[in-house]
Amino acid sequence: MSEALLAVAVEAAKNAGEIIRKGFYQTKNVEHKGQVDLVTETDKACEDLIFNHLREQFPNHKFIGEETSAALGATADLTDEPTWIVDPLDGTTNFVHGFPFVCVSIGLTIGKIPTVGVVYNPIMNELFTAIRGKGAFLNGSPIKASSQDELVKALLVTEAGTKRDKNTVDDTTNRINKLLYKIRSIRMCGSLALNMCGVACGRLDLCYEMGFGGPWDVAAGAVILQEAGGHVFDP
Amino acid sequence: MSEALLAVAVEAAKNAGEIIRKGFYQTKNVEHKGQVDLVTETDKACEDLIFNHLREQFPNHKFIGEETSAALGATADLTDEPTWIVDPLDGTTNFVHGFPFVCVSIGLTIGKIPTVGVVYNPIMNELFTAIRGKGAFLNGSPIKASSQDELVKALLVTEAGTKRDKNTVDDTTNRINKLLYKIRSIRMCGSLALNMCGVACGRLDLCYEMGFGGPWDVAAGAVILQEAGGHVFDP
Repeated sequence: MSEALLAVAVEAAKNAGEIIRKGFYQTKNVEHKGQVDLVTETDKACEDLIFNHLREQFPNHKFIGEETSAALGATADLTDEPTWIVDPLDGTTNFVHGFPFVCVSIGLTIGKIPTVGVVYNPIMNELFTAIRGKGAFLNGSPIKASSQDELVKALLVTEAGTKRDKNTVDDTTNRINKLLYKIRSIRMCGSLALNMCGVACGRLDLCYEMGFGGPWDVAAGAVILQEAGGHVFDP
Repeated sequence: MSEALLAVAVEAAKNAGEIIRKGFYQTKNVEHKGQVDLVTETDKACEDLIFNHLREQFPNHKFIGEETSAALGATADLTDEPTWIVDPLDGTTNFVHGFPFVCVSIGLTIGKIPTVGVVYNPIMNELFTAIRGKGAFLNGSPIKASSQDELVKALLVTEAGTKRDKNTVDDTTNRINKLLYKIRSIRMCGSLALNMCGVACGRLDLCYEMGFGGPWDVAAGAVILQEAGGHVFDP
């Protein structure tokens, strides 16, 4: 049953990925959600495509999407019903600039538990998938999170976020300041979903992000990372 | 003439890239140059391979390499002679962790001026090349630096570096703190040569790095970025 759910999600992600790939090399029409928070026609077109694809197969499921939530001005409450949580284009700033860390993120929760996850980077052609209890995969090969237990040997990934008020910016850079004494190095790549998958496949050891966009950034990544043996915390 | 120099440099970069690609998916033997500054057998094997390849064709040229300089404990003075400046593996931390931003960087100075540049990422299969006065290319297609002139729309790339004394770390995070109010966002990807090429092809708008490793990190990137219409400053 879960395999069928995953297969449909992968199909939807690949179709949306095709649109992202085509748009990636073209000039974009950009709207601003905030001073430095962007959205494009591609974000919206991909969310429509993914929702239509999933709804056709699963008319009784619930749906939460970044763009739909933005249009409504609110994120629907998560229920126990099977719920698809979708970020049609994570890494919109990268997409606008042509920086290759962009992805589609499609997660399914059942009983509020992340159960199926698909994260697809159509530019680098990397497809991360997981079903709860059945392992995590990159392009079909099993992946495992790093077993590094020394912070000084750990590569950390985080983001600067999109808020630019003094408190947030100071907190962001103070946190980095304290961490730099303890870790090997830091990366910022512009997509939380891909950051989580980077940890899931052991390229990165640690990831944190404060005040990210919404559940669509993490729903798929959470099950992929957990199935890869990683730990997910929401403190 | 320059085309022949470039062709030999590309050959050397591709041969070294083959070694990097093979090593990328294997366990690495890591040595520490500093607490968080790494070197591997692959760095050394690639430098030997590149120097041998270039020396065979250009026995009278001079050579400056990251690993040779480290072994000598000093970097040779740059002269007016044709001088190959080589980082056999930029992004060693990424290489050790399996993070795909790694590259070979081969630059040639003539009369101390960066004249030929090759930066090759064998994992993402991206080859950046330039000859002074003849444009810059990514996999054979011409590239152009961004024409963005509004800081608030600019994507900046920098690095945390490898020094962990209090002054350096504070300067690093204070700089990021001040910049976050002005720019769109920040990326840290772990390879200065690739960061410069990212600016050269317009994926990134700005790049700075303080106290980087040595001329091998920038010799190739400088000519690629200049030929793409970008500006290189050493303040």
